[in-house]
Amino acid sequence: MRSWRAYVIGSELLRQRLSRELQESEGIALPDYEVLVRLSECDGWQMRMSHLAGQVASSKSRLSHQISRMEKLGLVKRVECPDDARGVIAELTQKGMDTLRAAAPTHVEGVRAHLVDLMTPEEQKVVAALFERVIEHLDQG
Amino acid sequence: MRSWRAYVIGSELLRQRLSRELQESEGIALPDYEVLVRLSECDGWQMRMSHLAGQVASSKSRLSHQISRMEKLGLVKRVECPDDARGVIAELTQKGMDTLRAAAPTHVEGVRAHLVDLMTPEEQKVVAALFERVIEHLDQG
Repeated sequence: MRSWRAYVIGSELLRQRLSRELQESEGIALPDYEVLVRLSECDGWQMRMSHLAGQVASSKSRLSHQISRMEKLGLVKRVECPDDARGVIAELTQKGMDTLRAAAPTHVEGVRAHLVDLMTPEEQKVVAALFERVIEHLDQG
Repeated sequence: MRSWRAYVIGSELLRQRLSRELQESEGIALPDYEVLVRLSECDGWQMRMSHLAGQVASSKSRLSHQISRMEKLGLVKRVECPDDARGVIAELTQKGMDTLRAAAPTHVEGVRAHLVDLMTPEEQKVVAALFERVIEHLDQG
């Protein structure tokens, strides 16, 4: 399990570093950044909360707290689901999009410096193929 | 950035799946399991809270809440640091170790089924070497 061990520790350290860099230079937490990214990729900058929770590997209750906090910062807003009275949608605000655009270069630079630049083109292919296989496997299971 | 994208999504989905399997079969959350693993590997099953926070990629305040919750479950206890009045140590209890031993097969089986079995021996070597390089790079920086 040498590869698993290296992966767990390395990916945690990487996450910590990217998180600290975003927090220090842009004042935004990595989990908040990830919510902004997911919403920015959706039509109308909107996603159902239940779907968003899955996308950012969070529980519904934890995401609900996070969205409340982000709503106070003006980064997102909650809207009612038109075709489902119990559904709630999270929507990116213009301020959220501006924050994402300001923070993205820091994050992308961090990913490059602490991961991509450490990989050979061959390793990049291996990692892409492996995690695409993992995604396919987990989507089926 | 295809490899980064696959890695981010794949590793999140993997984490979600391993978390759900642990929660459903053993009633323990993955972050709690990770705390138990780290403490079990230390001399005397003890680690300073400030060091443990780094090890599990958590902030000190978030870890403090988590340890309080785990303390109520009897999995860990806080002890004062003998050589530093402000330092606090988290210590694994026997119940915590029993819980870890009961949960470990589920977690190890999940890691095997959803990651290791999907990798060729060559890919395992690439992933191990890559993340060891990431760890070394981040330790230096």
